[in-house]
Amino acid sequence: MIKLVIDMMGGDNGYKPTVAAVSRFIEDFPDAEIVAVGNEKVLTPLKGKDRVKIIPSTTIVPMECGVLEAMRSKDSSVYKAVNAVIDEEADAIVSAGSTGAFLSLVTLIVKKIDGVKRPAIISPFPTRLKDKQVVLLDVGANAENSADDLVNFAAMGVAYYKVVFGKEEPSIHLICNGTEEGKGTPLYKETYELLKSNPSFKGYIEGRNVLSGEADVVVFDGFTGNIFLKTTEGTAKLMSGMIKEAFTQSIWSKIGYLFAKKGFNKLKDKMDYKKVGGGFLIGVNTVAVKAHGNANEVSFYSSMKMAYNLAKNGIIEKIKENLKA
Amino acid sequence: MIKLVIDMMGGDNGYKPTVAAVSRFIEDFPDAEIVAVGNEKVLTPLKGKDRVKIIPSTTIVPMECGVLEAMRSKDSSVYKAVNAVIDEEADAIVSAGSTGAFLSLVTLIVKKIDGVKRPAIISPFPTRLKDKQVVLLDVGANAENSADDLVNFAAMGVAYYKVVFGKEEPSIHLICNGTEEGKGTPLYKETYELLKSNPSFKGYIEGRNVLSGEADVVVFDGFTGNIFLKTTEGTAKLMSGMIKEAFTQSIWSKIGYLFAKKGFNKLKDKMDYKKVGGGFLIGVNTVAVKAHGNANEVSFYSSMKMAYNLAKNGIIEKIKENLKA
Repeated sequence: MIKLVIDMMGGDNGYKPTVAAVSRFIEDFPDAEIVAVGNEKVLTPLKGKDRVKIIPSTTIVPMECGVLEAMRSKDSSVYKAVNAVIDEEADAIVSAGSTGAFLSLVTLIVKKIDGVKRPAIISPFPTRLKDKQVVLLDVGANAENSADDLVNFAAMGVAYYKVVFGKEEPSIHLICNGTEEGKGTPLYKETYELLKSNPSFKGYIEGRNVLSGEADVVVFDGFTGNIFLKTTEGTAKLMSGMIKEAFTQSIWSKIGYLFAKKGFNKLKDKMDYKKVGGGFLIGVNTVAVKAHGNANEVSFYSSMKMAYNLAKNGIIEKIKENLKA
Repeated sequence: MIKLVIDMMGGDNGYKPTVAAVSRFIEDFPDAEIVAVGNEKVLTPLKGKDRVKIIPSTTIVPMECGVLEAMRSKDSSVYKAVNAVIDEEADAIVSAGSTGAFLSLVTLIVKKIDGVKRPAIISPFPTRLKDKQVVLLDVGANAENSADDLVNFAAMGVAYYKVVFGKEEPSIHLICNGTEEGKGTPLYKETYELLKSNPSFKGYIEGRNVLSGEADVVVFDGFTGNIFLKTTEGTAKLMSGMIKEAFTQSIWSKIGYLFAKKGFNKLKDKMDYKKVGGGFLIGVNTVAVKAHGNANEVSFYSSMKMAYNLAKNGIIEKIKENLKA
């Protein structure tokens, strides 16, 4: 059995998408157990269901909430959910609530893995090589990092890549504004010096090559990583609009567009990280997945699936082993 | 007459694309004069041409060259070209050579405009709104900036936007990892505080919305801006590959693709900043355009056209007026 704790209330869209996603999930995965945390009144569709336990909570931590406020809101769905990871001995937790509140509560209550300086959000990305993914971290858990943090991110990224993609010695790249040694801010120069002796370290990589397929793990400070993540989303949106325009220029291109629509939608899904499943908070003692704030049923379901798969693969134990080695 | 100084030798592809671009340019623009700086032996196709003056140079500053080395290479094409801006009283200069060397030579020799702290590379970008462009700076002149630099970038960006797009009061956004006040690194928080009282300042903008069309001027530190710029390029490349795949799924989609190809290529050009013209170095006393290092004839020609248009519009004088106001 894989036990998932779900913050039913934290997202922008309230309980409706989470209730729908949980209902479907419990049917699709016979070895999944759900601990649903939220307002009992609105969770009635889940009441009495097999393998579903409801933990009542009465308040919701608002999106723009600070860490201290989140710590004080002891009856909020996210606070109770994070505590339920310990109390119910769960394998994973999923929340669509405030990133800051969720991350700090998980870090403070469930605790970091030994040897981890600061947890990071790690995100797999498609590349120009078929069936090759690249893994980026940190894409937004931290606003500011030290060189030691970035070196630690590299180790966590390698551990994740090994476990999820089964590659023996994943390579490490460091994002930068150029590839020559000596480029970058003082933070990146210092990190470069620290990583230099690591045989897996392949040097700096520029924004244009992160998704080319040449890299396995790319390390960012949380601020830059977050801008990278959101820039790919914005660029994809811009291009989608332009493509539609290009394919409405003649009756033939319109017909072709209809036939290619399936492939085109697949592409849009691939580029839409909201549908990919959410961000995995790497470095804490549980599988913590942050679903997108405005997740709908499909998106929340895929976050749950991501959490389930990572837990089933024993990712936490494997990361621990790899960080020790 | 608009007088352009051209560093004929600095780019990765040597003199061939620059000689071809200059030959075409001089025919297309009867009011353009060219000062071509480079190895006399290879510039023979330009010899004796009307409105072309050749200044001989014997060496080339290598791409990875540092500033000090560039300052010492007094017979290099870029050093002589930058000096020619003063000696020949030229209106503009174009180089495809080392960004660092070019920028520092221009800054040191031609000097900054009064009131400018650090020059920046400014780049216009297409947006999701038809016929609306957004202007980004700094996209790579600096590796590290202070909050004062960023405030100064905002003023330069506004001046540029007014002159080039004719909008009375362009808005200012600051890139960040979230839109709420209090987000960002200490640098961005400090800049936010400094810009807050400016009525044109509309707050933080996330990477996903920079190209949405809502912003006029978006301010970045040089490191983050460079990563933004190159990330859009990498994402566009990834998507182009995926689109091709989507449109080869059936005979009908292939036919449609053929009919849409023109529009599709236009889109690729729009997203390919190499073809857009290069980066304008804003904040110095001349129109300095940095062509892409591996510029081909088309790309170098469009950099020349960019320089010509900006000079013809009197951009430097107008920026000066706007910075005073």
